[in-house]
Amino acid sequence: MLTFEIEKKSTDSRARTGSIITAHGEIPTPIFMPVGTLGSVKAVSVEELKQCEARIILGNTYHLYLRPGCEVMTHMGGLHKFMNWDRPILTDSGGFQFFSLAKLAKFSREGVNFQSHIDGSRHLFTPEKAVDIQMVLGSDIMMSLDWCIPYPANEKETMAALEKTTLWARRGRDHWLEKGGVNNLFGIVQGGMYAHLRALSAQQLIELDFPGYAVGGLSVGEPTDLMYEMADHTVPLLPHDKPRYVMGVGTPENLVEMVGMGVDMFDCVMPSRNARNGQLFTGRGTINISNARFRMDENPIDDACNCYVCQNYSRAYLRHLYKTRELLSYRLNTIHNLHYYLNLMERIRQSIKADQFSAFKKEFFSQLNHKELNR
Amino acid sequence: MLTFEIEKKSTDSRARTGSIITAHGEIPTPIFMPVGTLGSVKAVSVEELKQCEARIILGNTYHLYLRPGCEVMTHMGGLHKFMNWDRPILTDSGGFQFFSLAKLAKFSREGVNFQSHIDGSRHLFTPEKAVDIQMVLGSDIMMSLDWCIPYPANEKETMAALEKTTLWARRGRDHWLEKGGVNNLFGIVQGGMYAHLRALSAQQLIELDFPGYAVGGLSVGEPTDLMYEMADHTVPLLPHDKPRYVMGVGTPENLVEMVGMGVDMFDCVMPSRNARNGQLFTGRGTINISNARFRMDENPIDDACNCYVCQNYSRAYLRHLYKTRELLSYRLNTIHNLHYYLNLMERIRQSIKADQFSAFKKEFFSQLNHKELNR
Repeated sequence: MLTFEIEKKSTDSRARTGSIITAHGEIPTPIFMPVGTLGSVKAVSVEELKQCEARIILGNTYHLYLRPGCEVMTHMGGLHKFMNWDRPILTDSGGFQFFSLAKLAKFSREGVNFQSHIDGSRHLFTPEKAVDIQMVLGSDIMMSLDWCIPYPANEKETMAALEKTTLWARRGRDHWLEKGGVNNLFGIVQGGMYAHLRALSAQQLIELDFPGYAVGGLSVGEPTDLMYEMADHTVPLLPHDKPRYVMGVGTPENLVEMVGMGVDMFDCVMPSRNARNGQLFTGRGTINISNARFRMDENPIDDACNCYVCQNYSRAYLRHLYKTRELLSYRLNTIHNLHYYLNLMERIRQSIKADQFSAFKKEFFSQLNHKELNR
Repeated sequence: MLTFEIEKKSTDSRARTGSIITAHGEIPTPIFMPVGTLGSVKAVSVEELKQCEARIILGNTYHLYLRPGCEVMTHMGGLHKFMNWDRPILTDSGGFQFFSLAKLAKFSREGVNFQSHIDGSRHLFTPEKAVDIQMVLGSDIMMSLDWCIPYPANEKETMAALEKTTLWARRGRDHWLEKGGVNNLFGIVQGGMYAHLRALSAQQLIELDFPGYAVGGLSVGEPTDLMYEMADHTVPLLPHDKPRYVMGVGTPENLVEMVGMGVDMFDCVMPSRNARNGQLFTGRGTINISNARFRMDENPIDDACNCYVCQNYSRAYLRHLYKTRELLSYRLNTIHNLHYYLNLMERIRQSIKADQFSAFKKEFFSQLNHKELNR
């Protein structure tokens, strides 16, 4: 079972820094988790993840269940050994993928009957099965199966999904405890964009006493202000002595804002996916490396960056690799972006430790050159 | 100017081992040169190339001329600096690409007028320009512009191409010497599948006194026996005290055979291209990693291999990455194949030093499990 220790609380925000201790080691918080959907953070090696100071990565239960499947994962001794990653792994439950990816998913109180997006085969996922699969994967932090809804959704739909999410959270938790309560299972707060439903969902899940809590159903197309409003409302309702995780978020600005709301954990495909589209993060905003102005630019992506890419390669070379679709392009861009995100979190943690988070946040936003932003 | 020293000659074959010394360091021979068409050996980093013991890589003049182009290459200070590779680079002349890739290439005594395969723009390449571009790239070993012909070709066509190749070799050499004779320029023997034309081409080029000689126009679709016959006939005609390079060859078996004919240098896209198609080399033949029998195979690609991939990953994981088209798949497969090729050359060199090349060759072929071959 996970240990969560808070080291320091900010005096002028809800930001806090601490550490989560798992069977695969310690995770300093607040933390960003690179996404390794299919047992690989796209385009980078585990050594490169460690060079970027990744302390925990995320795997996707839905994807890994379909490929390579539980038989292979069982035989190969779990995801850590399979992919040669010895630090913690968090896996989502599949809930979001049923909502976004699976074909013809039919939701019932029992679970989700869905068709694979790969070969059309039919499968049933239940809250119990979601736990079983994540136990096969050997996740350090497992997530409860939740019922995701689109944005916008009316109050009735939202309430119905919330009720199912609570029901499934209870069934998953009971099953997990019956199986010995190994590793950790987090609950996921739903409730859409309705503050009172967020509060209700949080209250119901807190009664189930999970080792940690996530806020799901954000960053699904709603305006940024509304996302902030929901997070700012929901996060303080969650137990202060347990890790709090906002799923699928977000931009560097989102991370800084939400740390200030008391969030401890984040994941997002943005640094890796955007890298593959040529968008690179810097302290002064993003650049797109395909831009013609970089054609003969001998400078690194970011003068202030000490990542492997910025220490060794010019913007001109990175532009050339990107324009010619060289595989090395995706790797180098991803290394830089992950380093940017993970280094940002390190700077955030340091600022909280020094009780300078608000000053850090002010400086962070003042340095962003909004003219260059391309979000 | 290049120094070539022969350290040891085999007593029962024409194999020899030695070293080529260039401005960017020493190259032990016989050597295999990984192909880095566009300023990147596809899917791998320069650090990984060094871990695989790559001592020299190849760049493609035609491709680099079109992208990023000479203006960028001049501004960025040449290919070594651009791609962060501090060991020797050999560049081809573009001759083969005009033959295989450029649209509507029109050959004349003056040179080649061709249309870019990227954007259809028209360009003129001359023997002088081929040297100029390679000087901009800063190649340690430049190749003369040659006139390639398809297989089969009749004697008249072959003779005409040979004559132009000699004319261009002379013009390129004169231009190179006028420009100061920096780095090195090799001549390329043509002559198709006609032994007497191979001899004629070799004789004409030897008169031009190049620092090294290549045999071009092999591995263009002819039967393997015919390729061997031509190489075996041509290579001994070339100066024994200069490096001898057979271009675009080949399989591991080809390399072993041709080392025995006295060849010192090889290049081929096979280890990297086949890696991206899932074909992996082992001492007992090739395997295709997509094969269902590897689904739960915990073993490395090759038990006897000490490459990074075989030390860290199972066939099951590599199959999973390949089947899911993860970018890491192309990298890991390429590292293994390049390591196989470069390690094979190291073993060949050791065997020649010990005057055991013929025994090595016999053992090499006996270990290949021809049932598993998939060429």
